[in-house]
Amino acid sequence: MEFSTRISSLKPSAIREILKVTQDPTVISFAAGNPAPETFPAEEMSIIAADLFANRSATALQYGITEGYAPLRDAITKRMHEKYGVGGDGDITFVTTGGQQVIELAAKVLVNEGDTVLCEAPSFVGALNAFRSYKANLVGIPMDAEGVDVDRLEQALKTEKNVKLVYLIPTFQNPSGCTLSLERRKRVAELAEKYNVYVIEDNPYFDLRYSGEYVPPIKCFDKAGRIIYAGSFSKVLSPGIRIGYTVAPAEVANKMIVAKQVSDVHTNLFFQMLVGDYLMKYDLDQHIAQICDIYKKKCNLMIELAEKNFGDRVSFIRPDGGLFMWFTIPGGRNSFDFCKMASAKKVAAVPGNSFSVDESEISSSFRLNFSLATPEQMQKGMAILGETLTEFLK
Amino acid sequence: MEFSTRISSLKPSAIREILKVTQDPTVISFAAGNPAPETFPAEEMSIIAADLFANRSATALQYGITEGYAPLRDAITKRMHEKYGVGGDGDITFVTTGGQQVIELAAKVLVNEGDTVLCEAPSFVGALNAFRSYKANLVGIPMDAEGVDVDRLEQALKTEKNVKLVYLIPTFQNPSGCTLSLERRKRVAELAEKYNVYVIEDNPYFDLRYSGEYVPPIKCFDKAGRIIYAGSFSKVLSPGIRIGYTVAPAEVANKMIVAKQVSDVHTNLFFQMLVGDYLMKYDLDQHIAQICDIYKKKCNLMIELAEKNFGDRVSFIRPDGGLFMWFTIPGGRNSFDFCKMASAKKVAAVPGNSFSVDESEISSSFRLNFSLATPEQMQKGMAILGETLTEFLK
Repeated sequence: MEFSTRISSLKPSAIREILKVTQDPTVISFAAGNPAPETFPAEEMSIIAADLFANRSATALQYGITEGYAPLRDAITKRMHEKYGVGGDGDITFVTTGGQQVIELAAKVLVNEGDTVLCEAPSFVGALNAFRSYKANLVGIPMDAEGVDVDRLEQALKTEKNVKLVYLIPTFQNPSGCTLSLERRKRVAELAEKYNVYVIEDNPYFDLRYSGEYVPPIKCFDKAGRIIYAGSFSKVLSPGIRIGYTVAPAEVANKMIVAKQVSDVHTNLFFQMLVGDYLMKYDLDQHIAQICDIYKKKCNLMIELAEKNFGDRVSFIRPDGGLFMWFTIPGGRNSFDFCKMASAKKVAAVPGNSFSVDESEISSSFRLNFSLATPEQMQKGMAILGETLTEFLK
Repeated sequence: MEFSTRISSLKPSAIREILKVTQDPTVISFAAGNPAPETFPAEEMSIIAADLFANRSATALQYGITEGYAPLRDAITKRMHEKYGVGGDGDITFVTTGGQQVIELAAKVLVNEGDTVLCEAPSFVGALNAFRSYKANLVGIPMDAEGVDVDRLEQALKTEKNVKLVYLIPTFQNPSGCTLSLERRKRVAELAEKYNVYVIEDNPYFDLRYSGEYVPPIKCFDKAGRIIYAGSFSKVLSPGIRIGYTVAPAEVANKMIVAKQVSDVHTNLFFQMLVGDYLMKYDLDQHIAQICDIYKKKCNLMIELAEKNFGDRVSFIRPDGGLFMWFTIPGGRNSFDFCKMASAKKVAAVPGNSFSVDESEISSSFRLNFSLATPEQMQKGMAILGETLTEFLK
């Protein structure tokens, strides 16, 4: 049978495939981006859920509108505006089925076959695959310790054909862990206006800062209405509930809402109401502070174990937040082979080429997640990775 | 700004827009397709939810795999196979964010711009818009009391260019209320094989039969692996939870899973587990029997009130199940004007042109939903529609 051209070349994401393998409980997984279950506010959610079933089930279990549950939208709009300066009169906030859906909807409404999407190199594979599913021409822009190289970004905006979107994860980037500097953020907003192009600011890790100085979202500098802000409750409440949102310029937001209508009608209404209640009845910032305490320890432990087990055989970037560390094996060695060796020893890591615009590229980097493993698993897993490295470098 | 060609012509669905208007509590709405809230098993769901929060929150609130929660998939596969004869060795069952997502994913993986999709005339606007969002060439096939005219369907399969999909709602069709006869179902399966084309069998109302004889799904006759079965818990448990599923030939199902991965990663896992538990711990068939008792009474009341208030000024089809009745005003009058008059009197009905491949077509039919209104609202609303008709026909 013949499939659409847009889908015929698309393969399942390597990470999601690895995730399946890691359902084997004997595997120590540094591969996925799963939050630690101890960060889920299950008890508070349970109390709200009981109230919803007892008193508001006729609404919570019924069809809702595509834009989302109004009190949740209002709470998000208020929080993003008052706390972070995100969103103004020209913007619309609506609820999505996870942050991933923001990316898919933006791609659907903006990208014709062959149009160019610029992204960081490396970047998040789930987003790259969303763009691939509309046959975008993906162009990766190099990064350094301050995030994406904005001069190279401008160069690409000038020279690449039909650039319709720029996709960035400016804060605690996945996979590199880098954070875009304040100056570069302002420059991105200026470039979006100058070259009349939409930018997706994908910011799921934004609240997970363990060190360094606060940097405001790019969206704060969006005078021209060009930044599509993608947010998510996956990392601060729960990913299983699939509640994300966007704050986006009305013109593109309204198109995205129409596209959402034909995709899933609306996002699970029960959990929209639950999250709405959570924001009103509990202190999300206090909860985030607790999560950051947990993750900061985990991050520091991974740094410590990396130094102990890898020594100077591998270089890495110290992240100020997020869920990931990015390691590079010097000498141009292929990290894919290293990850395969590790996986045979039941430790899962993701090779760098998974995050490339061209997956056939050889990468000497690999990504480790530090949020999910227990300290014991991390001790054991990092020791195994150290041994694997010794064998690999022989 | 420039949007993708696929989205630039797409407008919000008229029904979803009407739904927004009907958030006014003083409007009597026969417009939406909302189930009656008294059919939601809120108490049973509440018990399962409490157990999930107390004992399985680390799984229920965490990321899951795209295909869905395995015990739920297994329960659906078993139920569909053993009870209805749906699904065989060549098929895959996976969970979707409502039945709507099955349609969107099938369109995404099968339909190139300009390819033809054949559908019943009239048909479900949410599906038509999903096809429009990929710039499909929509061709409507006329129906009669036994459902879609299969000779006309074969004619279209022969003559229309690049037919990639046939979209049918064979049981208690939305909007017409018609059910495809057994003979025609067999014929559709044969045509799918003969013309090597996929058919979406969209069957959300299947379990809601109030009279007449059981007819098996088209998928039961799918020897060639051409039928994509779309099912949903929206009408038998709750639409707000957005849990649907498909039983589809592996080749197309695997492509759809890849497309789902980039769309929303996976469906709300908490409610996947909740529905999985419900299927194991409670008797869904007994619950469906209770729902059918409620809706049969509502359906009969609407028929009675139609006869009383419309007399022979309007013709209608007596449905054997589902949620809708389809009325036609003789003499080629435009039902859009009638619905506008009714809406000014605070009664909402959907004009027939909303369900047309070409929405600018004049239709003399309109659709009324009988599942949501209370008997008192139905009495009052149908009386107002009767008066509106008198004015309209003056």
